[in-house]
Amino acid sequence: MNVLITGGAGFLGLQLARLLLKRGTLNLDGKAVTIDRLTLLDVVAPQIDDARVRAVTGDLSDPAVLAQAIDRDTGAIFHLAAVVSGQAEADFDLGMRVNLDASRALLETCRQLAHAPRVVFTSSVAVYGGKLPPVVQDDTALNPQSSYGVQKAIGELLLSDYSRRGFVDGRVLRLPTISVRPGKPNAAASSFASGIIREPLSGVAANCPVAPETPLWLLSPRGAIQALVNGIELDGARIGNRRVVNLPGLSVTAAQMVEALRRVAGDAVADRVTWEREERIEKIVGTWPAAWDVSRARELGFESDASFDDVIRAYAEDAAVKL
Amino acid sequence: MNVLITGGAGFLGLQLARLLLKRGTLNLDGKAVTIDRLTLLDVVAPQIDDARVRAVTGDLSDPAVLAQAIDRDTGAIFHLAAVVSGQAEADFDLGMRVNLDASRALLETCRQLAHAPRVVFTSSVAVYGGKLPPVVQDDTALNPQSSYGVQKAIGELLLSDYSRRGFVDGRVLRLPTISVRPGKPNAAASSFASGIIREPLSGVAANCPVAPETPLWLLSPRGAIQALVNGIELDGARIGNRRVVNLPGLSVTAAQMVEALRRVAGDAVADRVTWEREERIEKIVGTWPAAWDVSRARELGFESDASFDDVIRAYAEDAAVKL
Repeated sequence: MNVLITGGAGFLGLQLARLLLKRGTLNLDGKAVTIDRLTLLDVVAPQIDDARVRAVTGDLSDPAVLAQAIDRDTGAIFHLAAVVSGQAEADFDLGMRVNLDASRALLETCRQLAHAPRVVFTSSVAVYGGKLPPVVQDDTALNPQSSYGVQKAIGELLLSDYSRRGFVDGRVLRLPTISVRPGKPNAAASSFASGIIREPLSGVAANCPVAPETPLWLLSPRGAIQALVNGIELDGARIGNRRVVNLPGLSVTAAQMVEALRRVAGDAVADRVTWEREERIEKIVGTWPAAWDVSRARELGFESDASFDDVIRAYAEDAAVKL
Repeated sequence: MNVLITGGAGFLGLQLARLLLKRGTLNLDGKAVTIDRLTLLDVVAPQIDDARVRAVTGDLSDPAVLAQAIDRDTGAIFHLAAVVSGQAEADFDLGMRVNLDASRALLETCRQLAHAPRVVFTSSVAVYGGKLPPVVQDDTALNPQSSYGVQKAIGELLLSDYSRRGFVDGRVLRLPTISVRPGKPNAAASSFASGIIREPLSGVAANCPVAPETPLWLLSPRGAIQALVNGIELDGARIGNRRVVNLPGLSVTAAQMVEALRRVAGDAVADRVTWEREERIEKIVGTWPAAWDVSRARELGFESDASFDDVIRAYAEDAAVKL
């Protein structure tokens, strides 16, 4: 079987690729199916060395690029590629093209295959907004207050309908904010949720642009990768007609994140965090909910991290940072 | 000011056009604004004779056609054009092109104007489905179980985001099933909700394809036209960031509809209804909710019909049927 990861050169895509190559199989319908080829599609070539890997570089919204990446042996697709929230808000057309048109083009390419490949589509808490119930349920109404959230919500609807019609066997995983991401800050409104841990651990100051009491809903990279694999291996019948699952996360405030950093890495590190609020970020992040009923996700085998202290320790291990 | 009606040759579009021409103005921001020109866009030319009317015929998803229909004097748009539910289910690509691509093209054309015209977009109860609460609220989660419902839900999301960004001043009205429609049966799954009244009144038998106890949520054509005008005249600030309003309707079962017909038109007429269930129709209609909290809509000035008996009498009057 061939497996495709879009956004395959991104940090999540690469970590997922490494896990899949290490495993060598996916457990589908009770059978271990060998991954013969792993296609990584992105705008740049991924840095990974394995005979099973094939890189396809190009624009995901271009059907010709998709035709190179998807073939009749493609049985599983992880659709991770996206323009992040801050960027989609700043450049409306870019967000529409990548987050909406490219997702639709991918689904259309799958439809032509006529064998309904499994597709995991990652969505986001940004599909919620406005006045929310105290605890968000899987069936709480979407009310996105950003273009990114709207584009993700549309992707969810399309994946659900393509699944209902049997064009694909889709699963939407709404990821908590991923923290701690390695690398550099990006244009996501939630970029600080990694920055305020990662930068201080590297000896660099980092600003937290939201109020200390702002709640965040977090999942570690390791947890996210595990959830993506669970998502693709899940029996479609267990998901039923509601193809969207809110993944379990840790609900912590910005202040609690920095307290955890203080416990794990000490005062000198935690004191590198500054607290200057930025309205542009607060306006987006402030609409995201913090409390969730994830009982359905847990029944389906998804798990959250044990504690944010552990998340920081795992990041330090992966990034070879000495605590 | 110029006003545009898409689907302007359809029955609702034509009735709306006649009302607008009769009124001559729209009440916007506390001022009576004269309707200088009324553009009716549809795949066929409308049958209407008035110097203010301009017909544009063509494919709504074609930007060149939209450029003919929308100009810098366009201040109000009623976007009614759609492929109906049964047809969108039978022909997936057609539904996507008209219900999704054309709506988006229309919004893009508006965005180029840079004066944020008012846009009323009609949506449908088909955006709901699956397990629903006993009473549907404005913020009940969407879970469409038909391609039509998915396409309408996507249109709602796009209109909301284009409004939030200031590209248009949009309002989404979720119309109950319109009954009694004049004319002939169409491919909508809900076509019978008019047919079981209209056909018997014309001396023709009509089949009800759903169980007698199936609940329907109905609005008369007169009520719908009035709601569309209210929708465009409504002050945008009163709608806030939730641009979607569930319109009030009458909740009646198929059996109650025929009982009303019996009361209004007699046994001979009501006995022309047959009750052979059709799975294809029941599968779609059965997912639509029947009880609604429409307090917000009523606060915004929307009203339902007084009784289904009255709806039948109004239909008979408009269609010149003697009771």
